[in-house]
Amino acid sequence: MPHDIRLVTDAELRRVIHLDLEIIDCIESAFAALATQQVIMPPVLSMALPHVNAEVDVKTAYVPGLDGFAIKVSPGFFDNPARGLPSLNGLMVLLSAHTGLVQAVFLDNGYLTDIRTAAAGAVAARHLAPGTVTTMGVLGTGVQARLQIIAAAKVMPVKKVLVWGRGAEKAEQLTTDLRTTLGIDVQAVADRHELVAACQLVVTTTPARDAILDAGCLHPGLHITAMGSDQEDKNELSPRILAQADVVVCDRISQCARLGELRTAIENGLMTRTGKAVELGEVIAGVAAGRTRDDQITVCDLTGTGVQDTAIATLTLGRITKAHAGTTLTV
Amino acid sequence: MPHDIRLVTDAELRRVIHLDLEIIDCIESAFAALATQQVIMPPVLSMALPHVNAEVDVKTAYVPGLDGFAIKVSPGFFDNPARGLPSLNGLMVLLSAHTGLVQAVFLDNGYLTDIRTAAAGAVAARHLAPGTVTTMGVLGTGVQARLQIIAAAKVMPVKKVLVWGRGAEKAEQLTTDLRTTLGIDVQAVADRHELVAACQLVVTTTPARDAILDAGCLHPGLHITAMGSDQEDKNELSPRILAQADVVVCDRISQCARLGELRTAIENGLMTRTGKAVELGEVIAGVAAGRTRDDQITVCDLTGTGVQDTAIATLTLGRITKAHAGTTLTV
Repeated sequence: MPHDIRLVTDAELRRVIHLDLEIIDCIESAFAALATQQVIMPPVLSMALPHVNAEVDVKTAYVPGLDGFAIKVSPGFFDNPARGLPSLNGLMVLLSAHTGLVQAVFLDNGYLTDIRTAAAGAVAARHLAPGTVTTMGVLGTGVQARLQIIAAAKVMPVKKVLVWGRGAEKAEQLTTDLRTTLGIDVQAVADRHELVAACQLVVTTTPARDAILDAGCLHPGLHITAMGSDQEDKNELSPRILAQADVVVCDRISQCARLGELRTAIENGLMTRTGKAVELGEVIAGVAAGRTRDDQITVCDLTGTGVQDTAIATLTLGRITKAHAGTTLTV
Repeated sequence: MPHDIRLVTDAELRRVIHLDLEIIDCIESAFAALATQQVIMPPVLSMALPHVNAEVDVKTAYVPGLDGFAIKVSPGFFDNPARGLPSLNGLMVLLSAHTGLVQAVFLDNGYLTDIRTAAAGAVAARHLAPGTVTTMGVLGTGVQARLQIIAAAKVMPVKKVLVWGRGAEKAEQLTTDLRTTLGIDVQAVADRHELVAACQLVVTTTPARDAILDAGCLHPGLHITAMGSDQEDKNELSPRILAQADVVVCDRISQCARLGELRTAIENGLMTRTGKAVELGEVIAGVAAGRTRDDQITVCDLTGTGVQDTAIATLTLGRITKAHAGTTLTV
């Protein structure tokens, strides 16, 4: 029995999907589902291709009540920039949760991943940052650095943003762009620890393999979201930061213990899987405590989960259908 | 930088891809590569969805020297037949092995999987069956039962085929169809152990969860390929069959120990991972012994590997390009 599949290109997706409050709320609900419903989310299929300096991840999650589930393919080929190509690419496939038939293929080159990752940052900021965030800091100058600033500005009245990056030029470009787009005071700074000292909310977005922040920069009323580490060899925060934080929140503890900041902290004997770490969905759903006082130090470790992919793919199909976008193939 | 993606439907694939000797040779080479080259093949991502009687598998493999690698998504929704839909569906994505960019999406509803699975059966028969196969037996009456007969007939002069299935009507239908298509004497039989007694080559293609063949049916000069079990709860052969066989060959030992006949034999203490089992690629490449005498009993345990998917996807893109088939989208 032939059925229709909706095929949607990167360009079509960029016309219909932007980082907005509906998407942030959708990702928030997905995390809550992870804590409160019988979500099925197998471990990430991860294939390292060291001789071509590449890796490929496949993520999925089945969320009861949703009509579909996504299978997301994320190749990262890190020699691509030298060829004039982006490192990250890939696609998302949405399958029917009732029949397994392919409903849609989003040929997004990683765009939906960028958006759902930024949305998770906004969710973490919403639930874990102190009551008043006047100054936000971002480490890194890539796509996620930009998107994390845009995302935070959607959920709180950020007045000033400080940006640190290894390349001063890229940091300056980022501040110029965002000053214009967002109408916020955005400045590049040279010292990342001074940046942290001046901020209530910090997001780290780098591919660092050794900690770029140490615990000396912690101060009362600070929230740090670390979203750079998503592989077994990445690490942005000194493990002492997690040890000293009042609250440590993971998107998924089992995954952060393998791919996130929690991994390094466990390896250094400063944290355990079953210790103080809780999950973001548990905080959202109110079944675990997040920040309870403005003067606490909180950390959120985001590695990226299949449940976010299923959530954004489902929302995307709805919007694409309404907008009559994409191409339909009968197979 | 925009790039082109080739999208190919099930119907277009069926026009260009048939089970032929080139495909059988291609799958044979893929197995040889698995034994002799630095193939990277992570464990299958397997998601069980018990409340909808379904499972989803994702397979992949990177083969040095090939320009692309496949990521294959196989949903099995076993209540589909009651809705008039096939249980198995899915698609294959072919990515560039150099840049990770998506090259092609084969919306095949599982067709390429059917073909590469049957081809593996032909490869196993070619390397493990005794010198003369006059009578072949098949257990099961589904798509693979048909394809395994067609596949074997491509690589050896099979004169007679016996078919056993739980439903006598389906077995009769299968024999009528194949008698016409292949011009071979195909007969349905009621007793599966009598079938084995009369055959030199037997292929089991059922979704059985408890052994359907016991060791009493073994006789000198018999080869059995068991390709039904590909999940942790499936089993077609009594573990004593593997224990008594002179040669046991797996498509991938690590995977068969989890998903194949080898699993049950290990659980029953009759086989070990590091014991007599060898891999099909090793036999093809000549680095492990397969059948050395016509009177031996050999067993091949096929669970289906990502390297087969990468091989057939690569071959398919070549044929589709030559045939100017499919649709091109620029993303």
